[in-house]
Amino acid sequence: MRRGLYVGRFQPFHNGHKAVIDGLAEEVDELIIGIGSADISHDIRHPFTAGERVLMITRALNGLKIPFYVIPLEDVKRNALWVAHVKSMVPPFDTVYTSNPLVIQLFKEAGIPVLSPPMYLRESLSGTAVRKKMYHGEAWEEYVPKEVVSVVGEIHGIERMQQISKSD
Amino acid sequence: MRRGLYVGRFQPFHNGHKAVIDGLAEEVDELIIGIGSADISHDIRHPFTAGERVLMITRALNGLKIPFYVIPLEDVKRNALWVAHVKSMVPPFDTVYTSNPLVIQLFKEAGIPVLSPPMYLRESLSGTAVRKKMYHGEAWEEYVPKEVVSVVGEIHGIERMQQISKSD
Amino acid sequence: MRRGLYVGRFQPFHNGHKAVIDGLAEEVDELIIGIGSADISHDIRHPFTAGERVLMITRALNGLKIPFYVIPLEDVKRNALWVAHVKSMVPPFDTVYTSNPLVIQLFKEAGIPVLSPPMYLRESLSGTAVRKKMYHGEAWEEYVPKEVVSVVGEIHGIERMQQISKSD
Amino acid sequence: MRRGLYVGRFQPFHNGHKAVIDGLAEEVDELIIGIGSADISHDIRHPFTAGERVLMITRALNGLKIPFYVIPLEDVKRNALWVAHVKSMVPPFDTVYTSNPLVIQLFKEAGIPVLSPPMYLRESLSGTAVRKKMYHGEAWEEYVPKEVVSVVGEIHGIERMQQISKSD
Amino acid sequence: MRRGLYVGRFQPFHNGHKAVIDGLAEEVDELIIGIGSADISHDIRHPFTAGERVLMITRALNGLKIPFYVIPLEDVKRNALWVAHVKSMVPPFDTVYTSNPLVIQLFKEAGIPVLSPPMYLRESLSGTAVRKKMYHGEAWEEYVPKEVVSVVGEIHGIERMQQISKSD
Amino acid sequence: MRRGLYVGRFQPFHNGHKAVIDGLAEEVDELIIGIGSADISHDIRHPFTAGERVLMITRALNGLKIPFYVIPLEDVKRNALWVAHVKSMVPPFDTVYTSNPLVIQLFKEAGIPVLSPPMYLRESLSGTAVRKKMYHGEAWEEYVPKEVVSVVGEIHGIERMQQISKSD
Repeated sequence: MRRGLYVGRFQPFHNGHKAVIDGLAEEVDELIIGIGSADISHDIRHPFTAGERVLMITRALNGLKIPFYVIPLEDVKRNALWVAHVKSMVPPFDTVYTSNPLVIQLFKEAGIPVLSPPMYLRESLSGTAVRKKMYHGEAWEEYVPKEVVSVVGEIHGIERMQQISKSD
Repeated sequence: MRRGLYVGRFQPFHNGHKAVIDGLAEEVDELIIGIGSADISHDIRHPFTAGERVLMITRALNGLKIPFYVIPLEDVKRNALWVAHVKSMVPPFDTVYTSNPLVIQLFKEAGIPVLSPPMYLRESLSGTAVRKKMYHGEAWEEYVPKEVVSVVGEIHGIERMQQISKSD
Repeated sequence: MRRGLYVGRFQPFHNGHKAVIDGLAEEVDELIIGIGSADISHDIRHPFTAGERVLMITRALNGLKIPFYVIPLEDVKRNALWVAHVKSMVPPFDTVYTSNPLVIQLFKEAGIPVLSPPMYLRESLSGTAVRKKMYHGEAWEEYVPKEVVSVVGEIHGIERMQQISKSD
Repeated sequence: MRRGLYVGRFQPFHNGHKAVIDGLAEEVDELIIGIGSADISHDIRHPFTAGERVLMITRALNGLKIPFYVIPLEDVKRNALWVAHVKSMVPPFDTVYTSNPLVIQLFKEAGIPVLSPPMYLRESLSGTAVRKKMYHGEAWEEYVPKEVVSVVGEIHGIERMQQISKSD
Repeated sequence: MRRGLYVGRFQPFHNGHKAVIDGLAEEVDELIIGIGSADISHDIRHPFTAGERVLMITRALNGLKIPFYVIPLEDVKRNALWVAHVKSMVPPFDTVYTSNPLVIQLFKEAGIPVLSPPMYLRESLSGTAVRKKMYHGEAWEEYVPKEVVSVVGEIHGIERMQQISKSD
Repeated sequence: MRRGLYVGRFQPFHNGHKAVIDGLAEEVDELIIGIGSADISHDIRHPFTAGERVLMITRALNGLKIPFYVIPLEDVKRNALWVAHVKSMVPPFDTVYTSNPLVIQLFKEAGIPVLSPPMYLRESLSGTAVRKKMYHGEAWEEYVPKEVVSVVGEIHGIERMQQISKSD
């Protein structure tokens, strides 16, 4: 049995993330989705709490053909401890899927296989771009799964984002 | 829709926990299972990592008739912040199910409903008792779901427990 | 009895802060003054310690017609915990007075009333502007209460600021 | 001008503390009252939050003949840093008044004068003894200033204490 | 080249530690001595600071026939991160020498060789026993290297210990 | 006996640092070398771990004519506590040698002598400049002691740096 790990910040969970996960569902038997910077919320780059992101992801993956785990990962501040932190918080895994250069380096130094993802696994969308639309009142709904639109509505996410964006 | 929260340390997840959750599945539409002291492991009272406990619980609840979320909760040290911490890490919930006196008090002060669980929700087993059997080489397998026996085997849990118990 | 909360960083306490507080003294029976980022000092944007700021504020408010509390508030890093942190560190309060967008949002999400302050409550001065004068050796004394001038002198504040500003 | 520092946990503020402070008011011109373990609350030995203790002390000292500062001090865990922490959080002081052996040692190593308090400054009451009466439903009101009785009532302190004491 | 790691708390560094290190100098080419709980001092079980322990050890090992490194290791609270923490703070090493059961388990889980030390490597003395003599004014000097006696004298260590021991 | 303290980040240890230390070896009897931001690694400005820097420095100073201590210093985040932190982690010292403006100010406020270093003590090289060459594949080896070149090779330092520099 192959269990993979995929880590992101998911601020918010968008169609690019969804496409990666759909692709990974062909590669592994079970997938762990780690929510990075779980402890950060209510700021410009991290508007949503970990719990809100758990809800977005779980709903949007309803129907995924493999079992998955959605796990918040608080920051540990120290890169040299991060792999040990992740390993302690999630079920055992054998492969990491990522295109993030630092994550690649940290797992490589820890001797854990990192798969350079095939093209369809690369994120074509950036969270920054989606958030920008949300802040500017532009149409953002088409870039995220429809379940994410619902969650953002339920938690009054746009109102929160526009309020905190006044801070600067 | 009613979403409930149930928090424990699950060192390990045992039949008492399972019975509580089976009961709650009759009361709520979705259930959040918060794993307390997620950051503590490899000591006498907390032998298992959060990730190992996620695996135990998820497997043991395979087939539960309602959707559930399994979320590690690191300690925050400060009781006055704990409810805010929990709320930020899990999806929104409307009722807490617990018989822990401190947890009751903290949620009550935060104005969140705590349901005093009916008899079948009370844990008839204690984690301490189960761990004691594991440390002493007594039969412990009958007190936990069979999936937990498998996980403990896979991670060489008994060997770890017996090794660290030499520390004192 | 109405007890209000007013939070700022007060680096340093200036005439704008004083005017806000004089105005609030007409609105509430008691006022709590929370000193934010209490744990940060000796850097460009935060030259003064919490204790030095306590002294500035307490002396400058000598004679205020209502009772007041001056409370250092260390940072908690996590926005989602900040309201719980503040509530645990200060006496109970019923209204928050602020024009800071993030503070407004956090208290609003916690269900605590935030009063959008009338015009005379808005700070017409910025701490940044006052510090700039202090760093550049320009006249800054007229922008702060005279008691603040004394405290800055006693602690050799200008010398400290000019020394640390060489760092970059 | 002589400014003294007096540190305690004040769980709760009782007549012994009050007698010490009345005595110190004869010795110094201003007094800083530091509330230790400000971040700890809702446990058996530390039932009250820092804010609740600020309120107890401020009210009970209403009418004290010298100016005083009431400052919460979060724990720093490291004894070697504690004096620096205290110094950064409170206004400058020249003498520490305490009978706590560790506090004496730490300030002495930092070269700060510690006055061994005269007999009337020694606490004849212990917080532990007062809390015991509160937990056991015995008469405790006579051991604390009447303003503390009021605060405990307003915050439903006895109910909280009796609830959390079920935890063990 | 073989570089070994030996970790202890060294409160204080005593003849048992010295004998272990003399033995290890026959086994390895270089030795790293990690000072555990480096951040804890001024309490009954941890009277000395990390810096004081660095001084004791370095002086007492003057003349050791292999090169050695003395490195303070602050606690990380989380057992699951401790090996990664140690690895980041000290030069690369290939073998750990210890008889501590938890340390054995943690390095074993991390896949790092732990050598079960031969008899002469086992500590025949305990720090607890040495400290007890120091607290009780009994002869303790014969149980530690003479350089440790000097350091304890220079820092007024016995006075500190006897003062803090009044705390309880 | 005069024991000096010299603090730097040493990312990496370069010829400028070496020249300063050679100069200091004429001034003091023993030298403590504190490695700042010891807990930070694997990022653009801090590529190397504390342990790797310990190794670079110790090897490069092999043959220095005075005894020296190489001590990692984790960050404490709070400038007001930093001097106390350093004092607790290193052996007692009587003079600090530095040209860093903030370090000068912090030690001066703590009443500890800071010597303004003579010209040959000033660093003519900056770590930033050396790292830039390492990232860009330019010749960097001539700017650091040859032992540092070896260590960087052994730990595959250039590969790490070039990998993490893709992150942004």
